[in-house]
Amino acid sequence: MIALPPPKPEVLARREAIVAALRAIVPGEGVISAPVELKPYETDGLTAYRQPPLAVVLPTSTGQVAAVMRYCHANGIRVVPRGAGTSLSGGALPLADAVVIGLMRMNRILEVDYDNRLAVVEAGVTNLGITAAVAERGFFYAPDPSSQLACMIGGNVMMNSGGAHCLKYGVTANNLLGVKFVTVEGEVVEIGGRHLDAAGYDWLGLITGSEGQLGIVTEVTVRILPSPEGARAMLAAFRSIEVAGAAVAAIIGSGIIPVALEFMDRPCIHACEAFAHAGYPLDAEAMLIIEVEGSEAEQDMLLGRIRAICGRFDPISLRVARTAEESAAIWKGRKGAFGAVGRISPDYLCMDGTIPTSELPRVLGRIGEMSRAYGLQVANVFHAGDGNLHPLILFDANDPESTRKAEAFGADILRLCVEVGGCLTGEHGVGVEKRDLMGVQFLPHELAQQRRIKGAFDPDWLLNPSKVFPLEGEGAAPAPAARAA
Amino acid sequence: MIALPPPKPEVLARREAIVAALRAIVPGEGVISAPVELKPYETDGLTAYRQPPLAVVLPTSTGQVAAVMRYCHANGIRVVPRGAGTSLSGGALPLADAVVIGLMRMNRILEVDYDNRLAVVEAGVTNLGITAAVAERGFFYAPDPSSQLACMIGGNVMMNSGGAHCLKYGVTANNLLGVKFVTVEGEVVEIGGRHLDAAGYDWLGLITGSEGQLGIVTEVTVRILPSPEGARAMLAAFRSIEVAGAAVAAIIGSGIIPVALEFMDRPCIHACEAFAHAGYPLDAEAMLIIEVEGSEAEQDMLLGRIRAICGRFDPISLRVARTAEESAAIWKGRKGAFGAVGRISPDYLCMDGTIPTSELPRVLGRIGEMSRAYGLQVANVFHAGDGNLHPLILFDANDPESTRKAEAFGADILRLCVEVGGCLTGEHGVGVEKRDLMGVQFLPHELAQQRRIKGAFDPDWLLNPSKVFPLEGEGAAPAPAARAA
Repeated sequence: MIALPPPKPEVLARREAIVAALRAIVPGEGVISAPVELKPYETDGLTAYRQPPLAVVLPTSTGQVAAVMRYCHANGIRVVPRGAGTSLSGGALPLADAVVIGLMRMNRILEVDYDNRLAVVEAGVTNLGITAAVAERGFFYAPDPSSQLACMIGGNVMMNSGGAHCLKYGVTANNLLGVKFVTVEGEVVEIGGRHLDAAGYDWLGLITGSEGQLGIVTEVTVRILPSPEGARAMLAAFRSIEVAGAAVAAIIGSGIIPVALEFMDRPCIHACEAFAHAGYPLDAEAMLIIEVEGSEAEQDMLLGRIRAICGRFDPISLRVARTAEESAAIWKGRKGAFGAVGRISPDYLCMDGTIPTSELPRVLGRIGEMSRAYGLQVANVFHAGDGNLHPLILFDANDPESTRKAEAFGADILRLCVEVGGCLTGEHGVGVEKRDLMGVQFLPHELAQQRRIKGAFDPDWLLNPSKVFPLEGEGAAPAPAARAA
Repeated sequence: MIALPPPKPEVLARREAIVAALRAIVPGEGVISAPVELKPYETDGLTAYRQPPLAVVLPTSTGQVAAVMRYCHANGIRVVPRGAGTSLSGGALPLADAVVIGLMRMNRILEVDYDNRLAVVEAGVTNLGITAAVAERGFFYAPDPSSQLACMIGGNVMMNSGGAHCLKYGVTANNLLGVKFVTVEGEVVEIGGRHLDAAGYDWLGLITGSEGQLGIVTEVTVRILPSPEGARAMLAAFRSIEVAGAAVAAIIGSGIIPVALEFMDRPCIHACEAFAHAGYPLDAEAMLIIEVEGSEAEQDMLLGRIRAICGRFDPISLRVARTAEESAAIWKGRKGAFGAVGRISPDYLCMDGTIPTSELPRVLGRIGEMSRAYGLQVANVFHAGDGNLHPLILFDANDPESTRKAEAFGADILRLCVEVGGCLTGEHGVGVEKRDLMGVQFLPHELAQQRRIKGAFDPDWLLNPSKVFPLEGEGAAPAPAARAA
């Protein structure tokens, strides 16, 4: 378990006054302070960590967010921004002395501009809500986290979220044009806009994925894309995870970019089949779901080429959907994978790391060895096309030894990702979960430079502290060594 | 003309000692200090500005760059990084007391990894040199600035360069995986890598387009893409620039993403036709070159749809290439456009701004009005698909009044871009050219936050000073207002 910083006693002592001040800024139902009503806010998608906040405030406008920030900044109060609270890395975990700014009431679609293929929405609009608003005209918003029904675009921006279809369309950063952003001092800043380039530094890129540590996003301008003519999936089953990994590397290496390329190993196939009855091959050690899109002719051409590549890897079976219905049947098991794995184990840790796709066979082999060494089962289901792994480590949270082993196993997997040239995170962010592993990815002077960037926005370290950086490094890093004379 | 900061007398006084110290770090031909040999370095693509540097150093390794930076940092010496010196905004303009670090000798392709579709190259490799290294295997590097034969990938990263084909493939930022980066203190940092996501902040995004002000990029990891099966262009000529602009907005609004969508107005058509004899329609007020790519069937389908859209705008002529040769003929005039305009006017200013594509008709109309009001001809040739304007203002640099008017006209165009929701830059960066217009785009507190980011990397403001920010704001911005205890 990861330590949280000690609360500031002077802030805890002023709780009543702080709540009253917040109520003056956001009247009506906008401030939550009763312990029982704080319950839903004490954790996020990383449910192993729980901590009730000092209070929750639910502003309805950028002006209110700015006023809350001005008050908190003037009074040295820590702030934790929150969208739908679906973060899997504990990015929205509260602190005992922090005010949670929840953006769920800022949920208006402000503008859809089809001529410029963009939508302007408030931060609390759900990911799927954007697509819903533009679907009738044949457009969609591309990044599709598994939680897209619930998760909010503001949180997507803060964690630079991905999804199964990001192989073709890129992650949030690739689909973002601008944000309205409230600084720690409560000033409102517009970053980016309706155009491709940025004058001056690209701080839109910096804000994207900054995990609520540089400021609070209240409005988002996203690119919307014309929906493809159609899409179809195929399923390919293999005799070993290494062979399936090699098939993925071969598909990507050939230059084909499918719209999705998902990987499931044997434990995951069995769990999903028992849950969804999707007709998955139970004799396979690994299977791929590969989806392409475009015109019928293009789908046929791409599926034919992919089928031929898979054929070189001695597949157990290849099943190419001929219709949208057959495609949906192939996806059915995958879409319920996390729930399905939840049925076969009391608990699981969902890891998230990224590796070069060519390393898939080796890394999957090594994860199998670790699984045997730790005596813990692992179910692999992930976005293989862009090398984004999601090993699910099965364990029993009521058994401290099992929990300890699962956390050590997870950390070993992430170290392995870095070792082969990959990255600690894929799409879940660092949060509290991977905070203490940042030293595996970065050298001390590299972390110091990143802390100096944080300090350039938030010198008092009030915004979402205790995330991203190891706790001992928290607080602004010293400036670069002063010049000799 | 724009002011440069006063040189530091103590640095000028130590010139001999500085040159000797640089020679010790980069022996052989690696240091240039003779005035006649400094000549080629006194300007870049923005030739109106000239200033010889204190000295030029040409390192051959990241270690040498780091050693030079350590020396300059310890001695308070300003540094201007330089690739091929093709910047059109004066990004590589020297200062009298600055050491230019030229990266042209660092020109090795370090690795091509086809399995992971990436190449690792030194910063001094030319843009086209990357494609040349991977073309035999059917791959290419997508961003294609007009200067791609000469310009270097390190400069592309620093200016976030674009090009005609960025409509489909995105700009440098969208094709970049990682950099090796030397800080002002001479420390070497690896940012990004062979994977999609970044742990911690996305400072790769921040470094991209930072115009040499945060550190020096010495190695670059770029995505390479499979070359398309084929590509074909069409030419559409219209009766007014407004109508042609409306046709562009209609094509983009329809959801089609051509690989290139170029716009030329009447003066540009005539200049190019006289130069290249490409068979351009001399009776048109504006023409579009629209290129699509993919299989033959896909090209036919897309060209058919675009032709139908253009047909709704009463075109004078539509010419669809049936072969690669016919396509090349259509491109021939466009590719020589800048040279062609250079033949009809003693001098021209090439502006660079971005607007929402739906604003094209209105903005082109307004530029025409300005042209009449200033009494200066303007030739428009630009990447219309992503709203990236390049108006060429024709003037006579030997006539001070003509020069003054041309600069005022250019500034008015950029103000107009911002006014309609666009941006001061498209792909040329801010440099010295647009430095004093940053206040048009940003509010004072927004500029202050960007200067704080600069200060988090370079508190002494040694790296490429006098660019990007108005001079009076130069130097680290004050920290956010201290909290009231």
